[in-house]
Amino acid sequence: MKPVKIGVCGLGTVASGTINVLTRNVSEITARTGCEIIIEQVGARRDNPACDTSALNVSRDIFDVVRNPEVEMVVELIGGTSVAKELVEEAIANGKHVVTANKALIAEFGNELFAKAEAKGVTIAYEAAVAGGIPIIKALREGLSANKVEWLAGIINGTGNFILTEMRDKGRDFADVLKEAQELGYAEADPTFDVEGIDAAHKLVILASLAFGMPLQFDKIFTEGISNIAPEDVSYAEELGYRIKHLGIARNTEQGVELRVHPTMIPEKRLIANVDGVMNAVLVKGDAVGPTLYYGAGAGSEPTASAVVADIVDVARQVGAGQQVKVPHMAFNTLQDLPILGIEEVETAYYLRLSALDQPGVLSKITQILSDAGISIEALIQKEPAEGEDHVPVILLTNRTIEKQLLSAKAAIAALDSVSGEVTHIRVESLG
Amino acid sequence: MKPVKIGVCGLGTVASGTINVLTRNVSEITARTGCEIIIEQVGARRDNPACDTSALNVSRDIFDVVRNPEVEMVVELIGGTSVAKELVEEAIANGKHVVTANKALIAEFGNELFAKAEAKGVTIAYEAAVAGGIPIIKALREGLSANKVEWLAGIINGTGNFILTEMRDKGRDFADVLKEAQELGYAEADPTFDVEGIDAAHKLVILASLAFGMPLQFDKIFTEGISNIAPEDVSYAEELGYRIKHLGIARNTEQGVELRVHPTMIPEKRLIANVDGVMNAVLVKGDAVGPTLYYGAGAGSEPTASAVVADIVDVARQVGAGQQVKVPHMAFNTLQDLPILGIEEVETAYYLRLSALDQPGVLSKITQILSDAGISIEALIQKEPAEGEDHVPVILLTNRTIEKQLLSAKAAIAALDSVSGEVTHIRVESLG
Repeated sequence: MKPVKIGVCGLGTVASGTINVLTRNVSEITARTGCEIIIEQVGARRDNPACDTSALNVSRDIFDVVRNPEVEMVVELIGGTSVAKELVEEAIANGKHVVTANKALIAEFGNELFAKAEAKGVTIAYEAAVAGGIPIIKALREGLSANKVEWLAGIINGTGNFILTEMRDKGRDFADVLKEAQELGYAEADPTFDVEGIDAAHKLVILASLAFGMPLQFDKIFTEGISNIAPEDVSYAEELGYRIKHLGIARNTEQGVELRVHPTMIPEKRLIANVDGVMNAVLVKGDAVGPTLYYGAGAGSEPTASAVVADIVDVARQVGAGQQVKVPHMAFNTLQDLPILGIEEVETAYYLRLSALDQPGVLSKITQILSDAGISIEALIQKEPAEGEDHVPVILLTNRTIEKQLLSAKAAIAALDSVSGEVTHIRVESLG
Repeated sequence: MKPVKIGVCGLGTVASGTINVLTRNVSEITARTGCEIIIEQVGARRDNPACDTSALNVSRDIFDVVRNPEVEMVVELIGGTSVAKELVEEAIANGKHVVTANKALIAEFGNELFAKAEAKGVTIAYEAAVAGGIPIIKALREGLSANKVEWLAGIINGTGNFILTEMRDKGRDFADVLKEAQELGYAEADPTFDVEGIDAAHKLVILASLAFGMPLQFDKIFTEGISNIAPEDVSYAEELGYRIKHLGIARNTEQGVELRVHPTMIPEKRLIANVDGVMNAVLVKGDAVGPTLYYGAGAGSEPTASAVVADIVDVARQVGAGQQVKVPHMAFNTLQDLPILGIEEVETAYYLRLSALDQPGVLSKITQILSDAGISIEALIQKEPAEGEDHVPVILLTNRTIEKQLLSAKAAIAALDSVSGEVTHIRVESLG
């Protein structure tokens, strides 16, 4: 087969990893692809000491790459959604295939970009956009194609998982671990994107659309971060046989699709509860296959490059042979407009933590409120009062209920004279 | 795209699952494939109450299917290596694509069958041959194509994993759990295939060849079963922070390829150590991506059908569009003749258990033998003697060493007057 010529846009962490992997593993990659992959041009405003480009044709104008008539496949690794979008649009208009690691671009503009690519007969590949080196896009689009996907749940932000793991292992508090994560380079100076779940939301929107065959709807997702998780919640979870993970969850129900990122208590015996540190994992439940799990590094130079290069090989295997990529961008050739449920319509179980006056009758008032709302209690822990305290911590695990019912019961409990301060709730999923 | 017509050979557990999934999920599968998949014919000697074939064209002569000019893709689900091989060869000769779940057929005859398929321009897809519904063949052939795979380790026999899980959870012995597994239908009346590792060996040979790009060499694999694992080994492993799993391990070293199935002690904190019951998991270490893990049901009607149907969709996506499947059968377009190491050349760590006279100086003789062989000791447990016993159990964990050195030191230890009975060894892998 004839060689396939690619152009790489960007020379940051992932781009340098991509060039390094393509160079180091050239013999394996060529033997797998069946044709040579040639880096025809690199577009980057500045050099990167992590990557030797002395033998490459580097242009300081990134747009040179998408205008280069020799380039058949553009590898977009600059990130962001403004210049990257222009670049991808121009690449498509020029009839070039696109490989990208850009989750924000796909989550927010995928619908229109895929339509443009299909009109031009080119492909946009984006394995690296979700969960770094884990081939989860391939699993959903191809490996699980026999299934109705019922739900999926993923640890899809390594920074958040690192923080929660440290909080549990060492009993530390959120702010303290965040500071360390920033020093280690796991978290950005502005950590909002990671700890408030926006990064995870980008990834979840992509996964859910592929799983259920619906258009990308980033504006519909519910997102709650981990900054309010208290050390006592982590230890009470442990006591109840649970762990707290920041999960992206998508579930296809008869009422509509649940699409939500939030801290979640899950049974410690589940494999995904044991995914620690910066690692990612996605659990997918199909009607035929049952539960399957995919685990690996969700970020980093070479793990992400692994996914980028896998996409390059995928496209090159077809393009080199003069064929078209026939796997649909969104897994399905025709998409369904499934309604997305608001968070108040979601059904799940809950953990509640509150501070109640240590007096007879208080607990019965609390349980009465829940019972009146049709919410039954799975477990209840009441602690001894600390020295000199007249309030005690009360922890409840409820059965599955609709969120709006839980919230109204929670407000009624918080309004009791015998309950002081806020009532904390954390959603609980069995993932069984 | 035009419909793709398939023929299903066999009507056992996996075949009925395949027909049921294709029927139940027809709208999802058609939307994903981009064309209709029509079951043109089923070949089966007898009916299966688990599958309604009243609307299908069923022939009692299985060979009718591979001779039916309307059938473009033959789905071989009869198992075994005699009739199945004839069937697949005739399908290929007649220019039909093949999908199979037959691990023995691929492991033992894959090299010649793939060569025949390539000469005819057809594809043999075999995702279901390894680890049931887990898309591990796809991960190795496509998802990880950027990587030099350094090693892989898999729990690829559910029966064995069920037995080891029960032994650990309930302190039961091997024979007792095997009997229950047979009653539950997890193990065959003749359990040799599962518990002696032959089934796992078939799967490992396939995984290793895909990972390293070498021909299938089933005759070169080392296989050791789990029937000699004693309850005390399970509990000592636990005490040392390890679990015993029946693993298939393949490692690409400078000296050659390690290819071995045997009970293995692995640190309990590894995710794969927590894969319990009949579930399967494969851990793959790539040079770019690092460790990745794939988990799911390794057997059963619909989990295996999930993989069979994924292959049907893969092939139909190309065939329906008049294209060829361009992913090489063995992941690489050109294979390397890598040497396979004998087990005595393998380097790993070891657990040793022996019964020694409870006297001063005995331990020093044992440790001296190991030290003379250049084997250092990572951990040592000497137990109190039981009431009325003059011997005590001694447990040792060694550093990594070459197996032949370990075996000769083990023989010297067993020959000591102060050591009674056999010395047990179990290989130990950190999988880090």
